[in-house]
Amino acid sequence: MIKGKDGTPIPKVVIERLPRYYRYFDWLENRAEKISSKKLSELMGASASQVRLDLSYFGDFGQQGYGYNIKKLKAELAKILRIHTPMKFVIVGMGNIGRALTRYNAFIEAGFKLEGLFDVKPILIGEKISGTTIYKVDELESFVKTHSVDMAIIAVPKEVANEVVKTLVASGVKGILNFAPLDLEVPDGFPVENIHIIDKALALSFLIRERQH
Amino acid sequence: MIKGKDGTPIPKVVIERLPRYYRYFDWLENRAEKISSKKLSELMGASASQVRLDLSYFGDFGQQGYGYNIKKLKAELAKILRIHTPMKFVIVGMGNIGRALTRYNAFIEAGFKLEGLFDVKPILIGEKISGTTIYKVDELESFVKTHSVDMAIIAVPKEVANEVVKTLVASGVKGILNFAPLDLEVPDGFPVENIHIIDKALALSFLIRERQH
Repeated sequence: MIKGKDGTPIPKVVIERLPRYYRYFDWLENRAEKISSKKLSELMGASASQVRLDLSYFGDFGQQGYGYNIKKLKAELAKILRIHTPMKFVIVGMGNIGRALTRYNAFIEAGFKLEGLFDVKPILIGEKISGTTIYKVDELESFVKTHSVDMAIIAVPKEVANEVVKTLVASGVKGILNFAPLDLEVPDGFPVENIHIIDKALALSFLIRERQH
Repeated sequence: MIKGKDGTPIPKVVIERLPRYYRYFDWLENRAEKISSKKLSELMGASASQVRLDLSYFGDFGQQGYGYNIKKLKAELAKILRIHTPMKFVIVGMGNIGRALTRYNAFIEAGFKLEGLFDVKPILIGEKISGTTIYKVDELESFVKTHSVDMAIIAVPKEVANEVVKTLVASGVKGILNFAPLDLEVPDGFPVENIHIIDKALALSFLIRERQH
């Protein structure tokens, strides 16, 4: 369990909200000097007390009645998220999603560094996408070790995802961003974030249809 | 606010978990006949009480001590999520992500029907991707109306996302799945689900680094 400034465990939902706060402070930076938790909460569509509670896990940023100093809090959030420390990553699975992520510049802008691409199809091995080479998935374990890769993105079919996970965990990778439509089998506490596109589309579809009733 | 069987409002987090339950019942279907809430919760990494509470919003599916009938609950979940009623959608933004989603077969498998693609770049207009045509974004509003499109996927740069949203809301589209890295400006209660890839990657990066301390 990740702990905050005073030793309180930080809930995962709060951690998942942090990048959103960072985005807002980044946007606010050239627009104002200070912002109240009330204004910020209106902007973000949350309650003021949630904003204050979320940020309080990481320190004492706001002064009652004075609001948050935008530049300062943005810098603090960048430090907390370690946005300026590059994270090395690989992408496994060169299907449509894997290829799109390879060309997704937002990773570079956010401080991630793409080290290698992996697939099983012999015909793809050696191909370069935007300057990064596709390697055989057999080489994944040794590649992660020799290149000290921090993070892997999984964009393989769900049938083989857990095999890839086994290799990755054995290789010493430290966390996985998963696009395969299943929950991965990882050791307890191993960092995983899921992007389940169809789950989101189905939830949206449910919201749309309920609203029409 | 969406209401459940006995009129209780269903929290959005519960709705967002439903497709995950559906995935598990789909997987379980050919493996067992019944499952207890305890077993199911272990499988899903949740607490048994959460599983029981989540499902109770939608009806009385389990009998104390007998567990859930897998086939029956899968069919119920399919009905709740209306998986067999096709949802018509368009994709706006033919960059890397938009193109990858165009070719993402999981949408079709889940009952979504791709009606059209949209972009601003004149050079792309008229191109077909997997049989679907790219139209000018100027035609978006009339296209949504004439084709009774239910849902739009936004995969445009964040600078223009809210312009596209305005057009979509005016066109009568009923919900948006958003891949642009910002929170969209929509009318109160308008269905939106966000897939913020970089937010997830940054949250993962935070979890990885905290764990190393």
